[in-house]
Amino acid sequence: MSSSIGTLFKLSTFGESHGLAIGGVIDGCPSGLKLDFKLIQDFLNKRRPGLGSLNSQRQEFDKVEFMSGIFNDITLGTPIGFIIKNIDSKSKDYDNLKNIFRPSHADFTYEKKYGIRDYRGGGRSSARETANWVVAGAIASQILKIKGINIFSYVSSVGGVDIKKKINKFDSELIYNNDVRCPCPKTAQKIREIIAICKSKGDTVGGCISTVVKGVPFGLGEPVFNKFQSGISKAIMGINACKGIAFGSGFSSSSKTGSEENDAFIVKSGSVSTSSNNSGGVQGGISNGQDICFHASFKPVSTIMKKQKTVDDKNNEITVSVFGRHDSCVVPRAVPIVESLTAITILDYYLLNKTTKISDI
Amino acid sequence: MSSSIGTLFKLSTFGESHGLAIGGVIDGCPSGLKLDFKLIQDFLNKRRPGLGSLNSQRQEFDKVEFMSGIFNDITLGTPIGFIIKNIDSKSKDYDNLKNIFRPSHADFTYEKKYGIRDYRGGGRSSARETANWVVAGAIASQILKIKGINIFSYVSSVGGVDIKKKINKFDSELIYNNDVRCPCPKTAQKIREIIAICKSKGDTVGGCISTVVKGVPFGLGEPVFNKFQSGISKAIMGINACKGIAFGSGFSSSSKTGSEENDAFIVKSGSVSTSSNNSGGVQGGISNGQDICFHASFKPVSTIMKKQKTVDDKNNEITVSVFGRHDSCVVPRAVPIVESLTAITILDYYLLNKTTKISDI
Amino acid sequence: MSSSIGTLFKLSTFGESHGLAIGGVIDGCPSGLKLDFKLIQDFLNKRRPGLGSLNSQRQEFDKVEFMSGIFNDITLGTPIGFIIKNIDSKSKDYDNLKNIFRPSHADFTYEKKYGIRDYRGGGRSSARETANWVVAGAIASQILKIKGINIFSYVSSVGGVDIKKKINKFDSELIYNNDVRCPCPKTAQKIREIIAICKSKGDTVGGCISTVVKGVPFGLGEPVFNKFQSGISKAIMGINACKGIAFGSGFSSSSKTGSEENDAFIVKSGSVSTSSNNSGGVQGGISNGQDICFHASFKPVSTIMKKQKTVDDKNNEITVSVFGRHDSCVVPRAVPIVESLTAITILDYYLLNKTTKISDI
Amino acid sequence: MSSSIGTLFKLSTFGESHGLAIGGVIDGCPSGLKLDFKLIQDFLNKRRPGLGSLNSQRQEFDKVEFMSGIFNDITLGTPIGFIIKNIDSKSKDYDNLKNIFRPSHADFTYEKKYGIRDYRGGGRSSARETANWVVAGAIASQILKIKGINIFSYVSSVGGVDIKKKINKFDSELIYNNDVRCPCPKTAQKIREIIAICKSKGDTVGGCISTVVKGVPFGLGEPVFNKFQSGISKAIMGINACKGIAFGSGFSSSSKTGSEENDAFIVKSGSVSTSSNNSGGVQGGISNGQDICFHASFKPVSTIMKKQKTVDDKNNEITVSVFGRHDSCVVPRAVPIVESLTAITILDYYLLNKTTKISDI
Repeated sequence: MSSSIGTLFKLSTFGESHGLAIGGVIDGCPSGLKLDFKLIQDFLNKRRPGLGSLNSQRQEFDKVEFMSGIFNDITLGTPIGFIIKNIDSKSKDYDNLKNIFRPSHADFTYEKKYGIRDYRGGGRSSARETANWVVAGAIASQILKIKGINIFSYVSSVGGVDIKKKINKFDSELIYNNDVRCPCPKTAQKIREIIAICKSKGDTVGGCISTVVKGVPFGLGEPVFNKFQSGISKAIMGINACKGIAFGSGFSSSSKTGSEENDAFIVKSGSVSTSSNNSGGVQGGISNGQDICFHASFKPVSTIMKKQKTVDDKNNEITVSVFGRHDSCVVPRAVPIVESLTAITILDYYLLNKTTKISDI
Repeated sequence: MSSSIGTLFKLSTFGESHGLAIGGVIDGCPSGLKLDFKLIQDFLNKRRPGLGSLNSQRQEFDKVEFMSGIFNDITLGTPIGFIIKNIDSKSKDYDNLKNIFRPSHADFTYEKKYGIRDYRGGGRSSARETANWVVAGAIASQILKIKGINIFSYVSSVGGVDIKKKINKFDSELIYNNDVRCPCPKTAQKIREIIAICKSKGDTVGGCISTVVKGVPFGLGEPVFNKFQSGISKAIMGINACKGIAFGSGFSSSSKTGSEENDAFIVKSGSVSTSSNNSGGVQGGISNGQDICFHASFKPVSTIMKKQKTVDDKNNEITVSVFGRHDSCVVPRAVPIVESLTAITILDYYLLNKTTKISDI
Repeated sequence: MSSSIGTLFKLSTFGESHGLAIGGVIDGCPSGLKLDFKLIQDFLNKRRPGLGSLNSQRQEFDKVEFMSGIFNDITLGTPIGFIIKNIDSKSKDYDNLKNIFRPSHADFTYEKKYGIRDYRGGGRSSARETANWVVAGAIASQILKIKGINIFSYVSSVGGVDIKKKINKFDSELIYNNDVRCPCPKTAQKIREIIAICKSKGDTVGGCISTVVKGVPFGLGEPVFNKFQSGISKAIMGINACKGIAFGSGFSSSSKTGSEENDAFIVKSGSVSTSSNNSGGVQGGISNGQDICFHASFKPVSTIMKKQKTVDDKNNEITVSVFGRHDSCVVPRAVPIVESLTAITILDYYLLNKTTKISDI
Repeated sequence: MSSSIGTLFKLSTFGESHGLAIGGVIDGCPSGLKLDFKLIQDFLNKRRPGLGSLNSQRQEFDKVEFMSGIFNDITLGTPIGFIIKNIDSKSKDYDNLKNIFRPSHADFTYEKKYGIRDYRGGGRSSARETANWVVAGAIASQILKIKGINIFSYVSSVGGVDIKKKINKFDSELIYNNDVRCPCPKTAQKIREIIAICKSKGDTVGGCISTVVKGVPFGLGEPVFNKFQSGISKAIMGINACKGIAFGSGFSSSSKTGSEENDAFIVKSGSVSTSSNNSGGVQGGISNGQDICFHASFKPVSTIMKKQKTVDDKNNEITVSVFGRHDSCVVPRAVPIVESLTAITILDYYLLNKTTKISDI
């Protein structure tokens, strides 16, 4: 259960960072879909490290190999099994971390929970796992696009530097044509500078990712314990380094009054719409036909090149310096991951909603 | 699935605000527990409206009736069925809302999703449902207390007025002996004033609830899709009016560097501890033995006494004024709700963790 | 989990035989269905004891009270909560069984598993629970009927007396207009005699129930672990006293050759059909459009009026004689229970199949 | 959901007969277990075709490759991903079946359900999938053995020839040291003859597998919808060609009286035991500490070398003769499959039972 997500469109994953391969099983993908393999590889490439000077130098081609569930490029409706081999894993790099718990990493908690851990590259807790999510996310995205649903995630802040202006027109190219995944060129440049400074200091820096989903029909979300925002939050909060999530007006809503916050219903081109979207497209746990909007906060990567105090597995206080191939800012790489988990979750809600009314079945 | 929460300790609920009763089934409660019925009723009373001049005047005794699963006050290990009758429901009050969608309420989305809705008092979307959660939460809390786990939720801000000072010592009495559930008397007074002003204007106001859980052992949480923070976030984000959640340093982590954010491991009284707790007690999705800390933001209640623009079910733009019995600030009443969902979720993680190691089974 | 059945159409139940009430929550019932309350009560009446001289004298009206999920007789799509009060429970009758484990009853295993049990009337293990299943089964049946799916269960043998002739035309009235639920009047008479003899001796007797489901479209069933026959078998084998289940040619298939067993495909009125139905309507775990046929075996009720050897809770060997209100043959009463669980399971498969193909969604 | 089994010990599988590989993910295997890889391969070898003159000539080495979840041969508690490559697949053999639905095969139902199928070797419906089950079953068996639980399945009849004598002493070697998996040498010889005759005629034959599980503690099974026999039945009935299952006295119980059927409790060496075991080790859905006994019936393999009537995908009636590499009797090969699914299911119940009592947690 812990490594599965989704009810009708369900992904079950496996894999440690430095094992033979990571991979997964996608169960419940509708049959008859001609898969866009280029789209899948594009998603994977966007997540891949080692692409720019800002990032980790680990070179993985992240080539997904599909084992089943597809026949002549078309989905069979049976489980889609896939693996992504770990090629450029230098396990030796991690031998010195065998008995050490790196600060704010998962080393300590994995050791305590399981009594054993694969210390190489973080093992199961490594962000390498997210490549699995992107495979399923790309397939989900392809289906959602057929239904007119498009997901746009982008970096909205790094190290305190925010996009000030409201983004109105979303364009995947504008987001992905720059290495920091920020659709505002000016902010992108500032973010690049902040990351470069951090890198030069052997430090890391956090940031925020904003997501807008266009074309979500009303009716998605399953009250009361599986509301739209509940499912999205569960998924997104599970991303490595994610510390918070907020929908629509988010935390600012806590200081507002009802008359400021409420979204008045209006009629627009004959359809019901809202004059504002503080609700972030969700009311009562169900999508209301407006754009879905949420924001997620990511802490700086815990692996820094600076000396840090920590403990070893014999309860000795020690000092550790970590060298290796690591990102100074993981936030740009997390953009396709947020998109993928959002796609998986929305597709699941979409399918769950197909049997809501007696007239639907 | 939509009205169930938990895997091993599982609550399934039902009920509309103005139906005969609300209620639920708790499946998986361990056998042999002598239930503390007073504790359960205390939890319910804390959630109950109509207790102070600040709140709704609907009078419900919220008397829970247990139907099964208990024998001579001791749990049988079989499902605990319970109902809470709706007594003081004045359905007639809602007849004028039959064909109207109140702004930022769930009227519109329920109608669109299901093609039908019980318009009386919000029906299934009413916060009345949360009484069910509190019943299960009180039972979960009792079990957690036996295990040394104590949950403290409190109002940390309303309408922008924050508790400034850090709360170090937690005391349930200090939180609950004032009607705004704020353990800082000075802030409590200011919050009271803000709510009174809103009430006088027929308006409502939002706020934040902070939660600290003491005594959580390390090892709780199930990577990778059911991480500790994922389960808590799914539950809390499902509370009516909740717009955001953040763990530990939360959104502020996005503007920090790794060297600022990292929690150094230290040895304290022979055990591994951390010098700071930006992680909020969770690393890699697993509890690390420190206090669990998270914050949730609540928007102002959507029902205001002021005139608002909206639409009816014939797509006509109209003006609506809602009268009735409503809270000006729901945040204090949400405190036991946050505690309850936190208890349900942590107990489930606690049980799931009993079969982690081969040496445990 | 243990007291829930179904994925999309899901029933969660509670209740001990001599508690205040039994009941349940039906989650996932499509909205917009005008409920046929008479049908529900008819189903309950068919299961009810105390109707004939052959049966237990416990008088329960089995009046179901719906608490939620229904508005103006129409389903809301929200959970349907219901209770059935225990009225004619004479708990005192069971005081003498407090420390005794009746042979082949669940007394011993409940005590050992849970460390505690409600010994009154079997507690949770009582067949009284099956009234909950019938409530949900009646609702599922109503939906299936709209879709042209009709379930016919009937007693096909008792105490070794079998219906010899093949039943070709199914008619609910023919089954239910006799107290032994056997559509062959001659066999019915013999069965009646067998039961009367057993009753006179203070003994009980077992029997078989056969089920034919007409109108099941092809495509229901979810390979590989949730095949059509798997879900049905899980449900039916959970009925009190059920000892075996077989589909189509069943156990006789084990002594046949492939050339005898195979169902040749033929074209009938332009559609693909089969010349025989040894498969019982299921191939590869998926319904093939033919009649679904399965048989279930029920052991005699364990409560007999004769003296029996057993043990008490102090490990003493003792002799026990049970007096009380019990059925001599439970099989006729199990007929609507088999129908109900079949309806619940098939409806769930029906809903699950709505998102199989990309062209369906 | 359809390709997953288990709640706490969970297997999710994928794979078509003639795709690149089959495989799966085992989630919830306790950490700290030193895996017995030889045992796993032994299980796989027992299931493997092509080992005797009686069986299919397809040669697959069924070499399982573990991708994750294991470190230095010890389980990490994280998901165990594995694949088994399809090596000796001769897809061309199946080109002539592209547009034909073989009688009593899954060709027709897969085509109708999914609108597409991988016709090569039965695709997803092939028994090749069962190799995945055996991998997980071998691991579950290893854990159960540590707990003193041993599963013995064996062929008890083929083509109507039954083991007459009751098997009292179970010995894995006695079962597996003969190619028909029958512990009675005389019956084994007769079965061998029956299979040889069928083979010579191009026909196939069915049979039964009996299972005895020794050492199951009392308390396993989760009433009311996940009773011990329900979970086992769901799993076993999902095996290709399985048509029926019965526990203990099974179908014969339907013709017995209560005084014949009841298992008297006795005290044996100071513990509670039963004088007979008609219950098959399960009462009220919970194991009672006696041997678990159940029987399953398998129809003859549908692929026969004789001419058969069938239809093609254009609704034309045609005659088909299938050539290829097929078993004349699949029952012996199903023995380790029954053992594996039994092991997976019992381990899951074992883990679920660890949190039953408040004193356990």
